[in-house]
Amino acid sequence: MKKNTIKVGLLGLGTVGSGVLKILEMNKEQVTGRAGADIRIKKILVRDMQKQRSVKVERNLLTTDPREILEDPEIDVVVEVIGGVEKARLYIEEALKQKKFVITANKDLMATAGAELMLLAKEKGCNIYYEASVGGGIPLIRPLKHSLGGNKILRLMGIINGTTNYILTKMSLEKMEFETALAEAQAMGFAEQDPSSDLDGIDAAYKLCILAGLAFNSHVKFKDIYVQGIRGIGKRDVFYAAEFGYAIKLLAIGDETEKGLALRVHPALIPLSHPLASVQYENNALFVVGNAVGETMFYGLGAGALPTGSSVVADLIDVARNINHQVENGIMETEFQPRDIVPMEELPSAFYLRLQAVDQPGVFASIATAFGNAQVSLDMILQKRSVKGMAEIVLVTHAVEEKFFNRALEAIKDSPVIRKINCVLRVIEK
Amino acid sequence: MKKNTIKVGLLGLGTVGSGVLKILEMNKEQVTGRAGADIRIKKILVRDMQKQRSVKVERNLLTTDPREILEDPEIDVVVEVIGGVEKARLYIEEALKQKKFVITANKDLMATAGAELMLLAKEKGCNIYYEASVGGGIPLIRPLKHSLGGNKILRLMGIINGTTNYILTKMSLEKMEFETALAEAQAMGFAEQDPSSDLDGIDAAYKLCILAGLAFNSHVKFKDIYVQGIRGIGKRDVFYAAEFGYAIKLLAIGDETEKGLALRVHPALIPLSHPLASVQYENNALFVVGNAVGETMFYGLGAGALPTGSSVVADLIDVARNINHQVENGIMETEFQPRDIVPMEELPSAFYLRLQAVDQPGVFASIATAFGNAQVSLDMILQKRSVKGMAEIVLVTHAVEEKFFNRALEAIKDSPVIRKINCVLRVIEK
Repeated sequence: MKKNTIKVGLLGLGTVGSGVLKILEMNKEQVTGRAGADIRIKKILVRDMQKQRSVKVERNLLTTDPREILEDPEIDVVVEVIGGVEKARLYIEEALKQKKFVITANKDLMATAGAELMLLAKEKGCNIYYEASVGGGIPLIRPLKHSLGGNKILRLMGIINGTTNYILTKMSLEKMEFETALAEAQAMGFAEQDPSSDLDGIDAAYKLCILAGLAFNSHVKFKDIYVQGIRGIGKRDVFYAAEFGYAIKLLAIGDETEKGLALRVHPALIPLSHPLASVQYENNALFVVGNAVGETMFYGLGAGALPTGSSVVADLIDVARNINHQVENGIMETEFQPRDIVPMEELPSAFYLRLQAVDQPGVFASIATAFGNAQVSLDMILQKRSVKGMAEIVLVTHAVEEKFFNRALEAIKDSPVIRKINCVLRVIEK
Repeated sequence: MKKNTIKVGLLGLGTVGSGVLKILEMNKEQVTGRAGADIRIKKILVRDMQKQRSVKVERNLLTTDPREILEDPEIDVVVEVIGGVEKARLYIEEALKQKKFVITANKDLMATAGAELMLLAKEKGCNIYYEASVGGGIPLIRPLKHSLGGNKILRLMGIINGTTNYILTKMSLEKMEFETALAEAQAMGFAEQDPSSDLDGIDAAYKLCILAGLAFNSHVKFKDIYVQGIRGIGKRDVFYAAEFGYAIKLLAIGDETEKGLALRVHPALIPLSHPLASVQYENNALFVVGNAVGETMFYGLGAGALPTGSSVVADLIDVARNINHQVENGIMETEFQPRDIVPMEELPSAFYLRLQAVDQPGVFASIATAFGNAQVSLDMILQKRSVKGMAEIVLVTHAVEEKFFNRALEAIKDSPVIRKINCVLRVIEK
């Protein structure tokens, strides 16, 4: 029977929850039209009934008791925007057991427990929607599932962490040092007081779990992903990269290879002509290569109340339509296959290297010999006039399996004329 | 009752039709999995049974009689990829009357008769899918309908014609003159022998009809769109634009304004920092601003057998799922509303102007006076040393309603010291 009103229980009224309420109010007519039903928030779980809210909300909608939502048979959909893993998981499991549809913006949960939750949803004949869990307002989940559904995805390459992209953009456009850019990002609210999860690539790796799972029809685990953050990159590296024709970006990359999936998050030099190179500040983008569509890219704000709320509301519209038409959209995820993971050191990559050497005859020869012995050939070299007897040497190699490059690097590190390896970065050629 | 096999009739086996067959073969397992059913091509309408095909196809699938598809009760879906308007329309109408789902890649038809066909589809309880009609493989229709469904769209701004973008890119990166770049585009197969529809903005305007209709919930007609092509732009203009910090692109723009919809296709200067500025060669991109999501962009190949086939196959997957779940997705288009259209001359815009003047005292003063009298203020001015008594003056104005700029331009044209107005272009500031 067709429902004219879809009743929603909202778990959490923080940034994203408030964004959802605002959108449902400001775009009410449009949302109702597209959903084919009224979408009504029946109850909202909060921690503190007294707290001042950035959004107008009727007092009698609020509750501190999750059972008022999870056990209310009238509620069709539970929207989880409290964040964190444990409580959120318990609530979502309970909602599914009560045969409610679930929408979540919870990246950590979907990355770590998405597979089990999907199976539970399928068992209960309902479904989990998670467009808002990655990429904020940018449509990513739905395009990967539907629009590109006829493609084998060959590569995903994304700038999916706004904090690090903001910092790297500031280092590039305003020639800031890393620490200054970080402090500014914190002041602007783009970086948290403890920014480790962003800076060390953890946040991007969780998002890659979700995206690569969908793209490659596989349950991807956090431990399958090689993760390296952006600490240690100096403004000199950003400068030299530009001289060579590259931007430095923190990339999350998934590749379909003959040996299996290769999954990694690390900073890399990417040609200035690549569409990802011009993704600036807190913006995110996902570059997708499919065997039919070719190269495609999705760009926008990866966080924020209204962008993330936009994705939650898109899911609400779909859920409403699906409740009224008994559609299951979750088939795909529950049929994900396990896959071999390619270790990082077997992947080919070009490398960028910046080092300090004593300025004396034979120094460059010793570096060149180390590379030659390891079968690594050099693509570009830059050495500026030395200062106080020390020369800064910057170079980019041709692509080579990582283990060969690492061998050369070990030999160089051992050389008495090399004072410091300042920075080593991978280079994406296309 | 759930169907294990969805039977498809293909009208046409040209570029796109062959692409669809190739994708269904190379990604068979994946397509079946996502569709939840086998997708089987039962019959293909061709003009010539004997013709050599770029794709392997069983001879007994071919027919020259459309009734073998349109009147076959076993066929669930008709895919129209013959192009052209009249025949395609007759076939699609007949398919809908026979209650078959329709998928089309036909931009001209959807732009001119989409509204009537949608209504007929609704009346017959089936639907028309047209992701492939605009933007080749880039997901555009589905994101506008679904992923951004909770947004009011404030602006669409797209590079949606590959031919003109290829030409403008060549003029910019390789400093080619327009004619040389056009000849190369023709040689590469990116431009047709009669390139008028592309060069004059007609193709982009048809696509804008389709996209703006969806974005603004309105039936947009070709005649509602101001259309201007790229003829008359010289490599000097591309050079000066870059000096001022802009790229020149042929843009299709739809704006939600207080007075109504403003719809236009014209070349414009766009800041180099704008994501559209780095869309190069034959690539397309659609920049969308929503009141919740903010700025977002969709990028990829706007044409070609496999990219366009990718969109057709995405539609096939959706149709298959929807046949098995009795979903209607067409509600929205059939509820489109008529809207006021804002005339071009009432829109504010900044302008770029390049002209030749006699090199004598008072010339610049006369230009400045003409602008001043028309209430137009100047933002940037460039005058290089004169050659043979003629000075080239290039300037960019601040934003102003077009009629004011036009008034100034008339006064300048009448001045005895102005020899030639070389180029006038609009400037998009963000």
